[in-house]
Amino acid sequence: MEKLVTTKQELVERVRSAEGSIGLVMTMGALHEGHRRLVDAARAECETVVVSIYVNPLQFAPGEDFDAYPRDLEKDLAMLEDVDIVFAPSDEEMYGRAPLVTINPGEVATRYEGRTRPTHFAGVLQVVAKVLNLVRPDRAYFGRKDAQQLALVTTMVADLDMGVEIVGVPIVRDTDGLALSSRNAYLSPEERTAALALVRALTSAREAAAGGPEAAQKALTESLEAADGVDVDYATIVDAGTFLGVSSNARSGLAIVAARVGATRLIDNMEVSFG
Amino acid sequence: MEKLVTTKQELVERVRSAEGSIGLVMTMGALHEGHRRLVDAARAECETVVVSIYVNPLQFAPGEDFDAYPRDLEKDLAMLEDVDIVFAPSDEEMYGRAPLVTINPGEVATRYEGRTRPTHFAGVLQVVAKVLNLVRPDRAYFGRKDAQQLALVTTMVADLDMGVEIVGVPIVRDTDGLALSSRNAYLSPEERTAALALVRALTSAREAAAGGPEAAQKALTESLEAADGVDVDYATIVDAGTFLGVSSNARSGLAIVAARVGATRLIDNMEVSFG
Repeated sequence: MEKLVTTKQELVERVRSAEGSIGLVMTMGALHEGHRRLVDAARAECETVVVSIYVNPLQFAPGEDFDAYPRDLEKDLAMLEDVDIVFAPSDEEMYGRAPLVTINPGEVATRYEGRTRPTHFAGVLQVVAKVLNLVRPDRAYFGRKDAQQLALVTTMVADLDMGVEIVGVPIVRDTDGLALSSRNAYLSPEERTAALALVRALTSAREAAAGGPEAAQKALTESLEAADGVDVDYATIVDAGTFLGVSSNARSGLAIVAARVGATRLIDNMEVSFG
Repeated sequence: MEKLVTTKQELVERVRSAEGSIGLVMTMGALHEGHRRLVDAARAECETVVVSIYVNPLQFAPGEDFDAYPRDLEKDLAMLEDVDIVFAPSDEEMYGRAPLVTINPGEVATRYEGRTRPTHFAGVLQVVAKVLNLVRPDRAYFGRKDAQQLALVTTMVADLDMGVEIVGVPIVRDTDGLALSSRNAYLSPEERTAALALVRALTSAREAAAGGPEAAQKALTESLEAADGVDVDYATIVDAGTFLGVSSNARSGLAIVAARVGATRLIDNMEVSFG
């Protein structure tokens, strides 16, 4: 059967007639090894694996890189040979018209990634809700790199009783430690070297975390202050599930960082254990 | 098998193992003949019929009649002998904690029923989304009496790709013309007589509608101005699907009215055809 599906109707027909468990991986294409790990996790656990490839306009603000975002469906498909269904709809098919009833991601979506991108998570959750509702998978796989997204998707699924297990898949790093991202392709060699300041700072925070949240925060901040060519947006320690501040008696937390390197905005995070 | 189900887990297990099509009727209990028509419609079309009975706190504002809302599960169950599953969860089971990710019902939810109840439709859509996601019915039946709710639910299902057919079931009227409502029980005999002004005004609008939307609006307004004991909240002609104003070349519309009769707020509506 044809792997590529471009209409909702065909997608629904295919997944409803599938036998066994269904795993879903949602992507915006430009697939790299990080996405492959999501697919591998789904492939290992589910009888039918669905990958969506859709550059969702709702999660880009005006002036962001929606038009410049890399698109190469043929190359992406070559990385998905072991996948059963690839859903790659047009904007017209996905939305028809601008949605009138939308997902409100709540207060935490105005922090961190949401502070400079106030409509981002509403757009993410809208498309995630739509594709989850179309596919109705048993499990959906999201990268831990987008940790705030993972927390919000998990919260949405609980609050709307969507009946899918959200699986967080560990961050994949290049040999130099840089977390894989489609946007790494934008980096010059000099910028790529500068970008390593993010993982270095997170590692410092992890190593200092035995001294508690304040020590981890101090190490994170000081490491980034000593770095060149990195314009830090935020760098802090949060609770991984809620993205609120860690309580004084917390046993672990998540060190999160976002920074601009040249014209490219990068994010990264690392779990830290206290005491 | 036991008809009454009080946990989400048992509900999901029961509906996922059901054969054939599933019809859902969502209620807040205090069942009357209007609800029975919804169940009858579901029963006629679906192999498994699920009725939910849940007085949803999220759709009541402080000071509204949440505590006073009539609750009599035993009496309700007696009206549902031909139903397969009755889902009657506790607040704790339904919500656990206050939801963080919510449904934003959009601008139209701030008009009409939403003007004096600004959080109402967000609360309605939250619980409707949850129960639709739990049951995953083929068809869900809503009364046309709550016309704005029906429009918003239909819009939500489209915008979130929820994959359920929303069926609007005609208003049931008592022999005197009063639309059935749980809240009619609050009316004194004198108030009940006064309340008939609503259906009288809607009928006037329908009869005048051959002259166009303005003529229908005029008849609606004048009929209510002549009525005693009725404190009108709104009375207007809208597009039934969007609840925006009717365009000048529309062929039909919906006359909608809300009014307080004594301490009781009533709503009603009627389709009108122009020209």
